[in-house]
Amino acid sequence: MHVGVDSFVSSVTDPTDGRVIGASERMEHLLEEITLADRVGLYSFGIGEHHRSEYYDSAPSIILAAAAARTERIRLGSAVKVLSADDPVRVFQEFATLDLISKGRTDLVVGRGSFTESFPLFGLDLADYDSLFIEKLELLLQIRDNVEVTWSGKHRPALTRQSIYPRPMQDPLPVWVGVGGSPESFARAGLLGLPLMIAIIGGEPRQFAPLVDLYRRAGAQAGHAPEKLKVGLHVFGFVAESTQAAADTIYPGWNEMFTKISRERGFARPTRAQFDATSGPNGAFFMGDPQTVADKIARVGEQLGGVDRLSLQMTNPRLAHSDLLRGIELLGTEVAPLVADL
Amino acid sequence: MHVGVDSFVSSVTDPTDGRVIGASERMEHLLEEITLADRVGLYSFGIGEHHRSEYYDSAPSIILAAAAARTERIRLGSAVKVLSADDPVRVFQEFATLDLISKGRTDLVVGRGSFTESFPLFGLDLADYDSLFIEKLELLLQIRDNVEVTWSGKHRPALTRQSIYPRPMQDPLPVWVGVGGSPESFARAGLLGLPLMIAIIGGEPRQFAPLVDLYRRAGAQAGHAPEKLKVGLHVFGFVAESTQAAADTIYPGWNEMFTKISRERGFARPTRAQFDATSGPNGAFFMGDPQTVADKIARVGEQLGGVDRLSLQMTNPRLAHSDLLRGIELLGTEVAPLVADL
Repeated sequence: MHVGVDSFVSSVTDPTDGRVIGASERMEHLLEEITLADRVGLYSFGIGEHHRSEYYDSAPSIILAAAAARTERIRLGSAVKVLSADDPVRVFQEFATLDLISKGRTDLVVGRGSFTESFPLFGLDLADYDSLFIEKLELLLQIRDNVEVTWSGKHRPALTRQSIYPRPMQDPLPVWVGVGGSPESFARAGLLGLPLMIAIIGGEPRQFAPLVDLYRRAGAQAGHAPEKLKVGLHVFGFVAESTQAAADTIYPGWNEMFTKISRERGFARPTRAQFDATSGPNGAFFMGDPQTVADKIARVGEQLGGVDRLSLQMTNPRLAHSDLLRGIELLGTEVAPLVADL
Repeated sequence: MHVGVDSFVSSVTDPTDGRVIGASERMEHLLEEITLADRVGLYSFGIGEHHRSEYYDSAPSIILAAAAARTERIRLGSAVKVLSADDPVRVFQEFATLDLISKGRTDLVVGRGSFTESFPLFGLDLADYDSLFIEKLELLLQIRDNVEVTWSGKHRPALTRQSIYPRPMQDPLPVWVGVGGSPESFARAGLLGLPLMIAIIGGEPRQFAPLVDLYRRAGAQAGHAPEKLKVGLHVFGFVAESTQAAADTIYPGWNEMFTKISRERGFARPTRAQFDATSGPNGAFFMGDPQTVADKIARVGEQLGGVDRLSLQMTNPRLAHSDLLRGIELLGTEVAPLVADL
């Protein structure tokens, strides 16, 4: 199994002195994280997309391009690019350019987004949540698979025998579908024969087994070869020397992050007991010493009938830069080798 | 006067062996050009925006981000970003992110574009050529000058007390207006108190003097301080050891490029006599040995009542990578010092 890192590029308050890291310094730290991930042999680094004051990743392709210029081997992707709210022509141009700069190391992971800010910001109606994504994904794939495109739809002006440039280095440019828990999304990705990136945010990872099965059956029925039907997981987590140290390092930021989200969405305030449960063997949070995290990866991979990629999202608003670097190093040098042959 | 380089990232056929440089290799060459420009102390590097098969710059901000990660001092800008065909929210987010990554080295130069491909590609009507730009520039400046924006217009969904993130390092992010020969554009930039980047493609540079004067008078009447009313020039050109070598190196690609454009626009085919005339002391093309180019810069600067920046666009589809690197080196080490005190 390939192991990587995803980042949402949250703002960070240094836990040692309470200093808020400035946005430009945070971006420099992020590029250090990515170059370290590259150096320790991790497979991929993904950048999310948010349009909120506490995240700096509203333009993930820009950040990925900077990372491409500083790295040699690591694959670079979106995690996810909110395709529903963007123009597939622009998105393709950006990621094709990134693919040229990175010499074929780009993955375009597209999704509908888990926050909803982008709808009013780009003048979209939440009632079109699904149809926006379906239509834009269809156009994106047409652009990817044909230099010249003729297309018309509801959410974007038509194209009449128009060609989109530049063309990427990889042919085809890998397009992954990022999904949450909707069965329709799993079935759709299978029918299209597209690799799947599952964001597991809560609950128990093994509960996704029927959905992964649905994806694989839909793909097989549509005639796609099993090797095309890849499964990736995007999960929250952290690695440290010991499981206790990982928990102590990560809890304050976890608490801050989920308190904020719970307040916005009207959920109950998260508790330490919840943190411990979600970090346990069956929980959604991949946290602990390298062996613990590797065991969990192996177990969940088995529960889901084989997983090709796992990306650990370690963004945390109270995580010191040095601790995050150490987490990336342990993930690359200790966890990844333990699960490489799965 | 500050001296820089602009590039349209055209495809290149190596003149020595007729080999077409691949898009990814071309992008690598481009990043070498920008890092060299940084190293020899040039002031700025700009990337154009085109949506055509023979140019690789449909997503300039992506290329600039890669350049930001590889450079230390040089300013990085668009040349120009076709604002009319894009969303000011996205454009601001991209360039704000670039500004964070480059630590405040970003210039956003916006214009209406000299080619028209982007209109059908993005579903726009050429009849709206002017109103698209006016409205989008207005929104862009509102976003730049206020974290929270309430705005409505004809060409983009309204914003109601929405905030655009991330915020750039420079406050305000420099927004330049790129103009061709339209007096309205010069007057508008002056009224808004925005710095002006003039693209001189043909004719004689001194003919722009009345337009520059119009810009400065409009700016003064609107109450803007003279130091806000900066003037930059974007010109075609090339520097080599001797003027003869510069001409021999650059003519084949110049001929190819302008033959193609002339055919598309129904102009007469360009001739060598035209190339020589446009390269002469009063022509639009800044070509020759370092002293010749420096003299021309000084003369044109004087004719236009003072110029703050000059960017040399040296893209040429028949120019060897090594010749272009040498041109950049001569521009930085020999031409720029000769005009630094102007």
